[in-house]
Parts: sequence; C-alpha cells; structure tokens
Amino acid sequence: MNYDMIRAADQRLAGYMRRTPLLTAPQLDAIAGRRVFVKAENLQHTGSFKFRGGWSAITSLSGKQREAGVVAFSSGNHAQGVAMAAAAHDVPAVIVMPADAPEAKRRNTEWLGAEVQLFDRAGEDRAAIGAKLAEERGLTLIKPFDEPQVIAGQGTTGLEIAKQAKAAGVEVADVLICCGGGGLTSGIALALEAEAPGLKPRPVEPEGFDDVKKSLEAGSIQSIEPRPGALCDAILSPSPGELTFPIMKRLCGPGIVVTEEEALKAMAVAFSHLNMVLEPGGAVGLAAALFHPDESEGGDVIVVASGGNVDPAIFSRAITEHGVAL
Amino acid sequence: MNYDMIRAADQRLAGYMRRTPLLTAPQLDAIAGRRVFVKAENLQHTGSFKFRGGWSAITSLSGKQREAGVVAFSSGNHAQGVAMAAAAHDVPAVIVMPADAPEAKRRNTEWLGAEVQLFDRAGEDRAAIGAKLAEERGLTLIKPFDEPQVIAGQGTTGLEIAKQAKAAGVEVADVLICCGGGGLTSGIALALEAEAPGLKPRPVEPEGFDDVKKSLEAGSIQSIEPRPGALCDAILSPSPGELTFPIMKRLCGPGIVVTEEEALKAMAVAFSHLNMVLEPGGAVGLAAALFHPDESEGGDVIVVASGGNVDPAIFSRAITEHGVAL
Repeated sequence: MNYDMIRAADQRLAGYMRRTPLLTAPQLDAIAGRRVFVKAENLQHTGSFKFRGGWSAITSLSGKQREAGVVAFSSGNHAQGVAMAAAAHDVPAVIVMPADAPEAKRRNTEWLGAEVQLFDRAGEDRAAIGAKLAEERGLTLIKPFDEPQVIAGQGTTGLEIAKQAKAAGVEVADVLICCGGGGLTSGIALALEAEAPGLKPRPVEPEGFDDVKKSLEAGSIQSIEPRPGALCDAILSPSPGELTFPIMKRLCGPGIVVTEEEALKAMAVAFSHLNMVLEPGGAVGLAAALFHPDESEGGDVIVVASGGNVDPAIFSRAITEHGVAL
Repeated sequence: MNYDMIRAADQRLAGYMRRTPLLTAPQLDAIAGRRVFVKAENLQHTGSFKFRGGWSAITSLSGKQREAGVVAFSSGNHAQGVAMAAAAHDVPAVIVMPADAPEAKRRNTEWLGAEVQLFDRAGEDRAAIGAKLAEERGLTLIKPFDEPQVIAGQGTTGLEIAKQAKAAGVEVADVLICCGGGGLTSGIALALEAEAPGLKPRPVEPEGFDDVKKSLEAGSIQSIEPRPGALCDAILSPSPGELTFPIMKRLCGPGIVVTEEEALKAMAVAFSHLNMVLEPGGAVGLAAALFHPDESEGGDVIVVASGGNVDPAIFSRAITEHGVAL
C-alpha cells in the first residue's frame, strides 16, 4: 500500500468522481476560533467518500472477477459506493448490511441495483457472512477499509485536499478526519505525506468507539466493545485494520473523541452555515474543529465531512434541538 | 445592462465568489425522466447567489459612496449578500427586512455586521423606507434586482453554467431558474445568450406569485397581489423589474409555476440525494424539473438551486412529510 497506488487510483477515478469543494463560512471560524476549511465529501457521488474506494476497487478487478461479481459488507456508505461503481461496470454486487442500517442507505443501495442481504449486528459476524458468500458464489470480497485498492481510492481525497489547501494559502494545519477502520484516514495520510507534509492527519471518533485513538496511544491495535444503538453508524468499527493501522501509527497525530451530542450540533452548524447535510458519522470531524479547538494545533484546521446519508428523523432532531445561536 | 458588464463583474468577483458545482444524482434523473444538472448556488457564500450581486454592486461604488454606506431592502438573501460584501469593504450597511423574514436570515444579516431595520410586510412599503433612509443618511440604495450592477453579478452564475454545461456535454437544455423580480434570471439570460445559445432560460415561480409568467404571456409588466404567509419568502416580488423584464421578454422561454408542496418535495429530494439544504424559494427550479417534466424541452435540464437559508422547522417539515420513496 503506497502513494503510487493513490496516484493510479486518481487516474482511474478522473472524470467519474466529483472533485468536491473545500468550503468555508465566517460563522464556523467564529465558533472554532480559527479558520475552518470543510472538504465536502458528503457531496461526492452516493453521498460519501466511499464512492472513491468502491470505484477504485471495482476498476482494479480482472475481467473474470468482474463477471463473477463482488460482495461487500457495510452499514451503508461503502455499500452505495460499491453498488454504484459495480453498476457502472456491469458487475453484479451483493451487499451485506446490518438490519438496523439507516433506511435511506438500504433503499439507495437497492435502488442502485445491488442485492442486499441483512444481518443482525448483535448476533452475527458480517465478515464471516461476506467471506462465506464470496466462497459459495465465487464473488470477490471488497472489504470496507483494510483493502489496498479501497485505501488508494479514499486517498484521492488527500490529493485534492493538498491542492486545495495550497490554493487557499494553508500550509500548516491539522486535518480532522472522521475515522472508522481507518481507510480514509490512512489513504489521506499517505497522500498528504507526499504532497503536503505540513498537513497533519488526525483521526476523529465518536465516544465509545475510540479504538483508533486507543490503538495510537498503545502503539498496537486495540479493540473496543461496540454498544448498540449508536448514532454514528458509518464509523462504528471495533478496531483499526491490519493495513490501515501501521500507516496511521506512522503518520497521524493523536486521535480526538467527540460526543454524539457534539456530532448533532455540528450537523446543525453545517445546516445553518454551509447549507449541507451531514450524517452523524460524517460530522465528527467538524465537531472536533468546532467544540475541541484546544486539541488541534496550527492556525487553521481542515475538516473532512465524510458523508451525509442520514434519515430525516435524525436530521430533524439535530437541527431543531441543536440549532446554534449565532 | 449588457453582457460586458457581466464579464466585468466576473473579474471583480474572481477569487472572492465560490465557483459552485453543477451536481447530479441518478435518482433525480429517474424522477425527472431526463438528465438533471443542479447548479448549487445554495453553496455560495452567504448561502445564495445574492452574494454575487451584492459584491458586484459594492465594488462598483465610488470611494465617497463607500464611505457614506449603503442601504438595501430584502427578505434575507440579498440582505446577507450585501452585508457580507459591505463588511469586506468596510462599507456601513443598513438592511430593511420584513418583520416576518426567516429568523436565520435576520440573525445572519446582523451577525455579518449590518444594521437591520424591520418593517411590516402588510402595511409598509419597503422601497419607500429604503429610499427615505438613502436620502436622510446619504446612503446608496442597492436594489435587490432592478439594478444593473446587481444583475451583472447574478449573471456570473450564467457564465459558469455555460462553461460547466459544455464540460458535461450539454448543448441544448432548458435552464430552470427560481425567479422573484428577475435579477438572476435576466443576468443568466444575458450570459447564456453570449456563451451558450442552446441553453434556454425559463423563470420558475411559486403558485400565486406568477407575475413573471403572466408578464411574459402578456408581453408587458403585470403585477400580482401578494398573499401573506407564503413559504417561498425569497421570491415573492409582486412584479418583474423595469430593467429585468425586457431582457426576460427577449430571451426567456415561458414561465413555469409550481406549488408550495412541490417546492417542499424538491427540498426532500435534494436532502436525500444531493445532501444539500435548499430553501423553498431556492427549490422551485428543481421542483419544476422533477414534477413538471412536460413543461421543459430538450433532452437535459439544468436547474439553478438559488439558495438554502431556511429555518429548521420548515426544513424538518419538508423532509419528514415529503420524503420521496425511491
């Protein structure tokens, strides 16, 4: 897994992925006490950065693999990214999703043409289900984060951040990245190491799911015990990956943890001042910028808003209960 | 008022305005039955295209005018656009807003440093209040649409649409534009006439406020009697302008009228499939594309999503009551 693979993925994605904007608003700067730049991956195709990794992985398959099809497990963003990329290349796709995944994510995954198989998050092991399907039906498993071509695709976000930060005059800044298993974080970290060494990647996790923070502190992979019913469904992985962790250990600053309430407040701020929809798991980076300013270094901060696929009820709760008086 | 003024405004705005993206989603295409491209001016600074006109107007003032300050009347989007541009150039700004303007708009206008004066939409004449303030305090009045440098600024949206449509391979299409007094519509029309003559501007209005449609049909300026409590606060002007109407008459196709419910449904679609926040008045163009497909011509359609400044209660209503089953 290296920088050259990210450059190669960027070429495969060129013309297909959206070059998402880096947005600002003076109200965000006022709350955070410094300039805040928001990389709007919620505006990516399928509503999250996962489109990049899905496309990168699908376009790396052999002809025979494409014909047989792929399987992926995901709470919904990787699902949609893989489904859309697979459909564009006429590759059959089976997606294994938890039964409690947001309805919008499941509906869109099916709408994009994938076969969805539901499993019980509490009682069943999604990785085992995926592996079994792969074996039984000859499908290629596209893992959500611990997979080189997926990391390479997510890393293209980092290439764009490097270019956009330079254009905005930002040379030294923390880059706050919503982090589940570390695919996006490690991909961005590799891209920034090569292209913008003054930008420091910082994984951000929701309270109770701080396995990456703990792993970085311990210097080895740590696991957490997931609790059910968590809001940030996109980033609930219990531990960083075998591939992603060594990259994060080498290149990332300390992890940051935010509460679910802070994620909801960040969603309300993005609603009010960026006119954008973020999902809870896609808002933890912004929450860290806004509500944990002491944990970031440097004059500016860059936030990756990683996704915006959220059910109406949760979004309504965020904006009506957490509107910010500014 | 001509194309050269738009090019000049584009130069004054370069580096300050946001070049907003032209977005797509397969779900929108499926609803509309054709390809839909959404020009996301809700992602412009201050959350609407009005920033362009405000900046264009402020940067056209003489040194003496800047020192004395400006006055503008607006339900909130022109207000914020003028307020932000004025603040950036150290120009004092007084904004005359209706007392029933959305709270978010009033709060942001004040936050941006403008002095806000409220008036009663039913009993008082905002134009007269603005004119009186201009005279008493030596302020320059920046009218919301019937003002050459404002039209020139809004027209820069059209320059970008022409370029982005070409890049997307769109040569013949209707361009559905949320229309109040016609500043945005006439500016875009002039830009497209010069840069992309295959793109036909079409004003879109909410039911009961179809003064532009009626005027185009009659061939002369017609007025409507505004009713109170309308949702699309941004585009409730009772008649097109003396400057904007002749341009629209010469260059626009027939007007399209949508209901408030259709605007709310379009907001729900944009929430679900573009992860963006639109306000009712900024969603009528998308509503026309999605729910009035028979009224547009050509294989593709371009929508200008003109703004996204909406109070949480109305947005919640849109997404919880009008979620689209796709």
